[in-house]
Amino acid sequence: MDNLWWRGNSRGLFITFEGLEGCGKTTQARLLYEYLIKRGKRVILTQEPGGTEIGAKIREILLDKDQGELHPLTELFLLNAGRIQHLIEKIIPGLKEGYIVICDRFMDSTFAYQGYGRGIDREIIRRLDEISRQGIRPHITFLIDISPEIGLMRHSGKELDRIEKESIDFHRAVREGYLELARNEPERIKLLNGERSIEEIHGIIIQYITGFIG
Amino acid sequence: MDNLWWRGNSRGLFITFEGLEGCGKTTQARLLYEYLIKRGKRVILTQEPGGTEIGAKIREILLDKDQGELHPLTELFLLNAGRIQHLIEKIIPGLKEGYIVICDRFMDSTFAYQGYGRGIDREIIRRLDEISRQGIRPHITFLIDISPEIGLMRHSGKELDRIEKESIDFHRAVREGYLELARNEPERIKLLNGERSIEEIHGIIIQYITGFIG
Repeated sequence: MDNLWWRGNSRGLFITFEGLEGCGKTTQARLLYEYLIKRGKRVILTQEPGGTEIGAKIREILLDKDQGELHPLTELFLLNAGRIQHLIEKIIPGLKEGYIVICDRFMDSTFAYQGYGRGIDREIIRRLDEISRQGIRPHITFLIDISPEIGLMRHSGKELDRIEKESIDFHRAVREGYLELARNEPERIKLLNGERSIEEIHGIIIQYITGFIG
Repeated sequence: MDNLWWRGNSRGLFITFEGLEGCGKTTQARLLYEYLIKRGKRVILTQEPGGTEIGAKIREILLDKDQGELHPLTELFLLNAGRIQHLIEKIIPGLKEGYIVICDRFMDSTFAYQGYGRGIDREIIRRLDEISRQGIRPHITFLIDISPEIGLMRHSGKELDRIEKESIDFHRAVREGYLELARNEPERIKLLNGERSIEEIHGIIIQYITGFIG
């Protein structure tokens, strides 16, 4: 953890949600946001890719269903471009003003999807990540773990986007990547069983967060 | 020059055009293309930012007139994203098949505009450039030098885009950057006086290229 930055420059709290498609992270991020708002906290709910006007345009390029030929390194640079813009425009100003910033996907998605999933050299990912994040790290990351089969099943009935269409093997590699990230940083990354009910998971999250913010 | 790559993997020739807005590089790139086509050569004429379908979408974000808040590092990552896609989809396959690839702006624009113009740490630019270019370098670069005042005057009567609206001081710094790049790599970068007539400049370019390709 970048404790120096955390203690020195901010009264805010930066919480990220991670996991495979269909794991329930978007729902949990929203439920946490609503819970904190009801408790009178100042909270920003945001997402990656996206989160800013420019980020939304980058997200359109990334998720375009009719565009199979996007090169993995192009994708990696686009994700980092969106992240810088998001940090400068929204996340850093929010944290400096003391907000709790909740972000649906952040840097761990890039390591899991582009590194473990697409097989880009992790050293390249690390070098770009170092430049784009400028020392900012989430204080808490909730990783909601499910099997790819369950995640994709939950999406059934919906049209799948370019990322979702990737093979089960790809999603298995991403899951393994996430679990390795969690093993490497157990202090920051809280592993949650995504097969539990929405209410159970929400309960665990607010219990943990309450310990953090009082 | 990456002579190993040049001699080993390609019969093609990679020519780039560089310079300030209004210097005449787009005209000269087109004139060279037409000259070589008439001589029966296999030639690809392309540009950055842009050059591919995905690159065109990235270019739209970069040149959007109504979008003042694009962060310099976001811009830098977007430019590199477009460059990778361009290299993989068009430039490298073209060179491998023996084409002469003519590109209107390439890596030197990034060093000149983002480094000298916007003041981004050149070490950051160099690190991203190393990842995105994957060892590919232009064999010949024509830098058409003009003063910013003349360049912008030539654009008068046209609506200026976001880049063109930058101050004269910015364009002076970009010009100085270009001249420094040319001093550092005189073998690759041919400096041309952009105040000469279109015909004169074209004549110098074809004389030089003819020496190269016979």
